Amino acid sequence: MANLTFRYGAMNSGKSTALMQVAHNYEEKNMKVIVLKPVIDTKGNDKLVSRVGIMRKVDYLVSDGNSIIKLLKDKLYDTSCILVDEAQFLTEKHVDELHFICKELEIPVICYGLRSDFKTNSFPGSRRLFELADKLEELTTICACGKKAKFNARVINGKYVFEGEQVAIDEVDDVYYESLCGKCYIEKVHNFVKQKRLKKH
Amino acid sequence: MANLTFRYGAMNSGKSTALMQVAHNYEEKNMKVIVLKPVIDTKGNDKLVSRVGIMRKVDYLVSDGNSIIKLLKDKLYDTSCILVDEAQFLTEKHVDELHFICKELEIPVICYGLRSDFKTNSFPGSRRLFELADKLEELTTICACGKKAKFNARVINGKYVFEGEQVAIDEVDDVYYESLCGKCYIEKVHNFVKQKRLKKH
Amino acid sequence: MANLTFRYGAMNSGKSTALMQVAHNYEEKNMKVIVLKPVIDTKGNDKLVSRVGIMRKVDYLVSDGNSIIKLLKDKLYDTSCILVDEAQFLTEKHVDELHFICKELEIPVICYGLRSDFKTNSFPGSRRLFELADKLEELTTICACGKKAKFNARVINGKYVFEGEQVAIDEVDDVYYESLCGKCYIEKVHNFVKQKRLKKH
Amino acid sequence: MANLTFRYGAMNSGKSTALMQVAHNYEEKNMKVIVLKPVIDTKGNDKLVSRVGIMRKVDYLVSDGNSIIKLLKDKLYDTSCILVDEAQFLTEKHVDELHFICKELEIPVICYGLRSDFKTNSFPGSRRLFELADKLEELTTICACGKKAKFNARVINGKYVFEGEQVAIDEVDDVYYESLCGKCYIEKVHNFVKQKRLKKH
Repeated sequence: MANLTFRYGAMNSGKSTALMQVAHNYEEKNMKVIVLKPVIDTKGNDKLVSRVGIMRKVDYLVSDGNSIIKLLKDKLYDTSCILVDEAQFLTEKHVDELHFICKELEIPVICYGLRSDFKTNSFPGSRRLFELADKLEELTTICACGKKAKFNARVINGKYVFEGEQVAIDEVDDVYYESLCGKCYIEKVHNFVKQKRLKKH
Repeated sequence: MANLTFRYGAMNSGKSTALMQVAHNYEEKNMKVIVLKPVIDTKGNDKLVSRVGIMRKVDYLVSDGNSIIKLLKDKLYDTSCILVDEAQFLTEKHVDELHFICKELEIPVICYGLRSDFKTNSFPGSRRLFELADKLEELTTICACGKKAKFNARVINGKYVFEGEQVAIDEVDDVYYESLCGKCYIEKVHNFVKQKRLKKH
Repeated sequence: MANLTFRYGAMNSGKSTALMQVAHNYEEKNMKVIVLKPVIDTKGNDKLVSRVGIMRKVDYLVSDGNSIIKLLKDKLYDTSCILVDEAQFLTEKHVDELHFICKELEIPVICYGLRSDFKTNSFPGSRRLFELADKLEELTTICACGKKAKFNARVINGKYVFEGEQVAIDEVDDVYYESLCGKCYIEKVHNFVKQKRLKKH
Repeated sequence: MANLTFRYGAMNSGKSTALMQVAHNYEEKNMKVIVLKPVIDTKGNDKLVSRVGIMRKVDYLVSDGNSIIKLLKDKLYDTSCILVDEAQFLTEKHVDELHFICKELEIPVICYGLRSDFKTNSFPGSRRLFELADKLEELTTICACGKKAKFNARVINGKYVFEGEQVAIDEVDDVYYESLCGKCYIEKVHNFVKQKRLKKH
């Protein structure tokens, strides 16, 4: 039976590299893969770019309104594996469709994505993958303290900020994300709350 | 660093047995564990009962309004592990508190529970555990077809039913749950939808 | 494809309990399992006994000279799963046979056993399972220091001893095993070596 | 507690890519890693080369006679992680030393390597890692049949050959390795044995 696999990890855990390695493994055996990516992510547009220096074209960009089944229906007969990058941005319906394709057509589906946002809440796609996946596998990265990082903190103009929209769109500020372990994340939140209280007075 | 672990599985995957085994392992080394259970589950009341024939008293029943930190605060100094049964019924706040206890007091927390309900939607507790846990580990059971079961189907008076409340309270009908693999679950849903359509005409 | 799984763990990690739970899960669905155990282990003879208080009869005791394929050949047609306890004591040939049965007859095989002896060397059965298994899964227990235990130390008359035969047969002494984490194991070995040196002078 | 991790996989499962990704993750946080490789492997000499197109210099080549502790002793004070490629070629003593460094100095050690040779026998390094590692994690690749590959078959002049030395040194023939699933591997061995018998007559 083909599996729906969700490989989740914090920012910078090497998800795109891992996806491209799997694609390479299939293609080396002359097997066809399809690489999908939700359109919401604009980093690299229709390209996967990995920090270690490799890249690859995405086969199909998926919008919220798209049906993945309709999008792929003529292309699935000779496909050995479907790979999805930034899978946290899939809709619930997209994940249901991928599960259906996997089970009915016996095509393995491997989704790579973030587990949760900077407030530790899951994204629609990751939540649904948690509910449906046959396998949940973590890709790990390290916190500055040396422990395994599982959370993503949002840093705006050099300061940790724990409020705001799930997807940052403000391009005025200098925004980046830092992967943190549970203990460091809790500490940063405490400092943030303390600072906010001080400002009120 | 102590871990927050979520061991999830479908109905009848041996979650309570596994919990009692871990409690036994600690106690055999003269280490204290605390066993919690959300109060919503009335099966066995304040007892864990396993289908293989072992049982154990729960240390604390947790209600939705309870703060686990307040409930346990004087008992944590000599506790080596916190074990939670039926963890899917924890509130989001309960899971946040368990994560906090784990990280701040370095006490391992192991939660056992269902991943999702009979409609494949996660419970509040399991969803939050997916977001916060350091380790997600699956306990497996088998579908009648021989494959690994991951879903729970609700069977009322001998028929698969895919509509209704998340927690069944109707005591008039004969309700039980059957663990199914992805393929068999999809098939049962299709039959259910077909039957409903036929009845309309 | 059916899998050959090796669930390994230190002493007292609940291997027999886990095996009996899986047997129960299959039988509850009216599926037949076969439970095997190498004859070398005399604890409970042809019974599995778990420390949490459940037991079960073994279907076949396997001696070193036995062929598992010959032993089971008429019984496999309606078997849904083969379960092996104390699998570290299987011969290399036994494991090859189990792998063959698994792959050719599509019958899942789940072996439970120790990874290594009190000197951290693998047993013949565990070594071959490491080489052939589709899945390696650890069952954990705790060291007295609170960390995960992975080694087994031999304690004779109250003292840690790191020399002697792999399988202890001396019934004169009071022998038991203690599961230890890597750090504590290294410490106990150092003390043992130091004591031996002191005695020499 | 720092972990000794063994990430094993068949040929072409992306082990070197994965190692370089981890090194990158540490260095991005300004943490130092040391990359080791046994000298026996001459592919790329003191370089890691990945099939997806990235490479990296090895910090230390380790010979059979080397003590890793002596080799690294002045360099460990500021090292956050030790990474080993082709770890199957480590000696038993090397692995013992890495385990000691990991536990006594609290430095994580991650070893990447093959599980077994073309006859399904483990290598000295992989066997010892199986005995000592805190975590065993599989890196997967695919068999030509679409299933997960776990074995490596040796192909000489276009034919599967299941006899010969563990490490091929003959440079006259055209030798390569193919990763296979359990079922396909058994089939190729059967064909090989049949051919050999036919030749005898």
